[in-house]
Amino acid sequence: MWIVRVNMTDLTYSVGETPKAYEYLAGRAMTSNLVADEVPPLCHPLGPNNKVVFSPGIVTGTPAPTAARISVGAKSPLTGGIKETNAGSSWGADLADMQVKALVIEGQPKQKGKYWGLYITYDQAARKPKVDFFDASEFTGKPLTQVFPKIYERYGDKISISGCGMVAEHGYSNAGVVFNDQEKRATRYAGRGGVGSVLASKGVKLIVLNREGVPGVEIKDKALFEEGNNKLTDALRTHAITKPKGALNSYGTAVLINILNEAGGLPTRNFSSGRFEGAAKIAGEAIFDGVKNRLGKEVYNHACSPGCIIQCSNTWFKADGSEHASCVEYESAWALGADCGIDSLDDIAELIRLCNEYGLDTIETGTTIAVAMEAGVIPFGDGKGAINLVHEMGKGTPLGRILGSGTETTGRAYGLIHVPTVKGQSMPAYEPRAVKGIGITYATTTMGADHTAGYTIAPEILGVSGKQDPLSQEGKAALSRNFQVATAFIDSSGHCLFIAFAILDIASGFQGLIDECNGVYGTKWTSDDINAYGAAILKKERAFNEAAGIRQEADRLPEFMRLEPLPPHNQVFDIPDEALDSVYGQL
Amino acid sequence: MWIVRVNMTDLTYSVGETPKAYEYLAGRAMTSNLVADEVPPLCHPLGPNNKVVFSPGIVTGTPAPTAARISVGAKSPLTGGIKETNAGSSWGADLADMQVKALVIEGQPKQKGKYWGLYITYDQAARKPKVDFFDASEFTGKPLTQVFPKIYERYGDKISISGCGMVAEHGYSNAGVVFNDQEKRATRYAGRGGVGSVLASKGVKLIVLNREGVPGVEIKDKALFEEGNNKLTDALRTHAITKPKGALNSYGTAVLINILNEAGGLPTRNFSSGRFEGAAKIAGEAIFDGVKNRLGKEVYNHACSPGCIIQCSNTWFKADGSEHASCVEYESAWALGADCGIDSLDDIAELIRLCNEYGLDTIETGTTIAVAMEAGVIPFGDGKGAINLVHEMGKGTPLGRILGSGTETTGRAYGLIHVPTVKGQSMPAYEPRAVKGIGITYATTTMGADHTAGYTIAPEILGVSGKQDPLSQEGKAALSRNFQVATAFIDSSGHCLFIAFAILDIASGFQGLIDECNGVYGTKWTSDDINAYGAAILKKERAFNEAAGIRQEADRLPEFMRLEPLPPHNQVFDIPDEALDSVYGQL
Repeated sequence: MWIVRVNMTDLTYSVGETPKAYEYLAGRAMTSNLVADEVPPLCHPLGPNNKVVFSPGIVTGTPAPTAARISVGAKSPLTGGIKETNAGSSWGADLADMQVKALVIEGQPKQKGKYWGLYITYDQAARKPKVDFFDASEFTGKPLTQVFPKIYERYGDKISISGCGMVAEHGYSNAGVVFNDQEKRATRYAGRGGVGSVLASKGVKLIVLNREGVPGVEIKDKALFEEGNNKLTDALRTHAITKPKGALNSYGTAVLINILNEAGGLPTRNFSSGRFEGAAKIAGEAIFDGVKNRLGKEVYNHACSPGCIIQCSNTWFKADGSEHASCVEYESAWALGADCGIDSLDDIAELIRLCNEYGLDTIETGTTIAVAMEAGVIPFGDGKGAINLVHEMGKGTPLGRILGSGTETTGRAYGLIHVPTVKGQSMPAYEPRAVKGIGITYATTTMGADHTAGYTIAPEILGVSGKQDPLSQEGKAALSRNFQVATAFIDSSGHCLFIAFAILDIASGFQGLIDECNGVYGTKWTSDDINAYGAAILKKERAFNEAAGIRQEADRLPEFMRLEPLPPHNQVFDIPDEALDSVYGQL
Repeated sequence: MWIVRVNMTDLTYSVGETPKAYEYLAGRAMTSNLVADEVPPLCHPLGPNNKVVFSPGIVTGTPAPTAARISVGAKSPLTGGIKETNAGSSWGADLADMQVKALVIEGQPKQKGKYWGLYITYDQAARKPKVDFFDASEFTGKPLTQVFPKIYERYGDKISISGCGMVAEHGYSNAGVVFNDQEKRATRYAGRGGVGSVLASKGVKLIVLNREGVPGVEIKDKALFEEGNNKLTDALRTHAITKPKGALNSYGTAVLINILNEAGGLPTRNFSSGRFEGAAKIAGEAIFDGVKNRLGKEVYNHACSPGCIIQCSNTWFKADGSEHASCVEYESAWALGADCGIDSLDDIAELIRLCNEYGLDTIETGTTIAVAMEAGVIPFGDGKGAINLVHEMGKGTPLGRILGSGTETTGRAYGLIHVPTVKGQSMPAYEPRAVKGIGITYATTTMGADHTAGYTIAPEILGVSGKQDPLSQEGKAALSRNFQVATAFIDSSGHCLFIAFAILDIASGFQGLIDECNGVYGTKWTSDDINAYGAAILKKERAFNEAAGIRQEADRLPEFMRLEPLPPHNQVFDIPDEALDSVYGQL
């Protein structure tokens, strides 16, 4: 198993054995350890000493279900702290199948503004991956639909593509790293924290993997792996949220819009209300019905990456039946919809399409536009105005650069106090004043405001692993801690976080996850080991952040959420600081 | 002695006795203690819980020489930490003469965008200050030369004026608090850290003081005060830097341009060199000669505030002999000149005039334009382009808002790594790679990069209190600490920091400072007490910053200064972190 290091200062690379200490690290565990061990915490995120680390999870590339996640790690230009953000793509599976545990992009070209592509193949003679560099100048400054097809044309069908969009070339703090989906589109993003700009700062525009002749992931105990695979597959196929034609497969993640709106926890018009009167018009059900109406048939969702059996990815179509955008996720529909007061799925789809074209994180983009709306740049609800703002970002105009720098910077530029960020990263689609546990996750995770870091929505809203009152403080610090620990492991396993619904409710599914990982590694991990593994990641990340000057004072929500009650529940965020500090304090 | 509190939530005020614990606090000691005691460290700087505190120094308002400083304190929107910034103006003397120890602006109007003026008079019957509120709408959105004359017209000649410019209404992090000079111009700024925007966030546009019938500062031991006054006056009149027709009186603070250029420590073109080929054209000598040439006579400098005997403030004139701008300080001439590669005093004067008109900090404005120049927004050396950028700031265009948010935000918006800031505040006119001690001050002061916080330039460059090698690390942490401690006291005394040259070299001058303060307060402070007083302020400020999440990891210079050697000395900033941490660690 290899660690491939690409040095962009002198365009060289090395393929080395994975060090013993990193033997069992993968996904988030690998990216966070590598970043914490090798990146100076106080370096400039866009400078020569930052690194971009790609790492597939433990079971990525295997036949395990819903397990093609690829983690991207770096010091974040958005938060100034450590960042892991992951996506599902054949790219991750291909890297894993090359037996690469981590791809590390280091250094920085002397000449600014020159971009390269990496073409990584598997040298069957040498039984090692091999890196070639190509001039990527012709692919810069272009929407990604003008880039990806050309790469497929040049390198053929056995490839997967990663890279960054034109906004990363601008150095925006909200630029993501993009991966191809199953339809060869540039739609799958490791979106958060500006890792796209870190990649661009290395002079890397594209990373193309060719899976020709790859050996595949080595599985130490095939029988155990198979057993785990079956258990987890059964659980996923059984659970109401993840089963075929279940909630996610039918309505996508946007099934949550109506649910959160009902719960009064759907942040609306820059976090000024927990209810959006236009919610039903942008919800998963409306997407399903809209597609049915426009295509004349019921369309269930599809996989974003190889081997996914949940299949929650959708495509939105124009009135004439032509494809408009994929994927209309809950987070995107909320950020570019409810949070901006926009209730048109066509406008939202166009906004998502543009984010994909330019390489933007849809969450940060939506929350930023909402702040710009509060500042009076355009009115709330102005879908066409919002589309124009995303074009400004693409073009790199001064207004685009404010917005591309993220929600916090936009709030600063307009002198606003309603700026829904933690550690510089904007909050996702759950209102902390209405769902207290997720507020604890936002406040305390090493990642900046991030729902995926400890998704307490499962019990607080969805009743997964027991129902908890979202408005109650009771036990929520421990809940968030437990979810953050478990998540750190899942983010390392290579599985999509959405397996959590099934494994939380179905014990055999959880055992299946452990069996799979033990199958690959030949280990004998128990659930305690899994927890220790997750906790170790969090501690490592936390230590990096502290050395970067991000300490417990940064584990707080913005002041306005403590001062201003949120309709309809008219509650403030009232979790005491001591409870917040106990999350990592008692790790 | 009074503390006047104005509550802008409901337009009320109170005049209360100074609490015992604050009895000997004044100037920076008062503002920093009040802010640290009353402002929640994690509050939003522009929110209802921040406060703006004005406090005259111990001897402000007395006949002490060069002692009309007024401190302005708040949580800074630029740094997120505590901020004290001071200016010399009759306004400070008038507030002191009303026997007001602190004026505290609190709360926030519900209605955003509505501005008020405060008219503060001395009620001779009640023997107390009195506050009236007036609608200041008509004074918003205008350059200050269209505001100050109208206020003098309305309230007569016995007034002094403070307030904020139009950029503070935009909420910029680089907006200062302005005060009148002796010619009734809006030219004296407590410029750093965005305190102007904090004032504007309170809905306060103007604070007018009418000195009619003021009782004056109470002096407990008049004889001792007089003795101190004489000693200090003698020292100031004797020292080569501060004496009449000495360095400052002849050439102004810009006398430093040639000196720092010679030393290779004049930051040029966004801190890419320590030498500027156009230095001589913008130096104090060039100002003196230019004015002589245009007016046909030698003009020595004038006082910026009542009672100043150093008199370093100048005025620049146009070719036709009409007034152009005041004052062309070293910092302004450097920031808007050398750091931008601009060598025209006419362009620099126009830039300074505009900063005064709009309410901008000239240092932050210049360093920000330099960063924009590096980003390619306009070329280095483009004076007319720079003037246009300041207009953009005034207008509040998107580009203006980026720049108005300061140097660090501008660096972020353009994805640059050469961003010369500490704790979010831009560095002033001394290169840390060429003058190591001042780099330690920049890194460690509670204020963000700030030369005035511990002006080691005195020994490192000017040979005041003994000459030290600017390139040496030897003893520099202790030097910076000692200067920071002494400065904290001088900033509380009400004296201009420029008395430091004379009191460092002339022992009787230093004793004079102590005698004056003891005279006013009836105390028996020794030099040890003075040091303890200064150290206590620093500790208080530091504690506030730590509670705001600004800890020792923030006591660092930007990475590029450790990586990239600076011509002509080709040195990096090489002070070890341990030395930096010892500055406050051993306080």
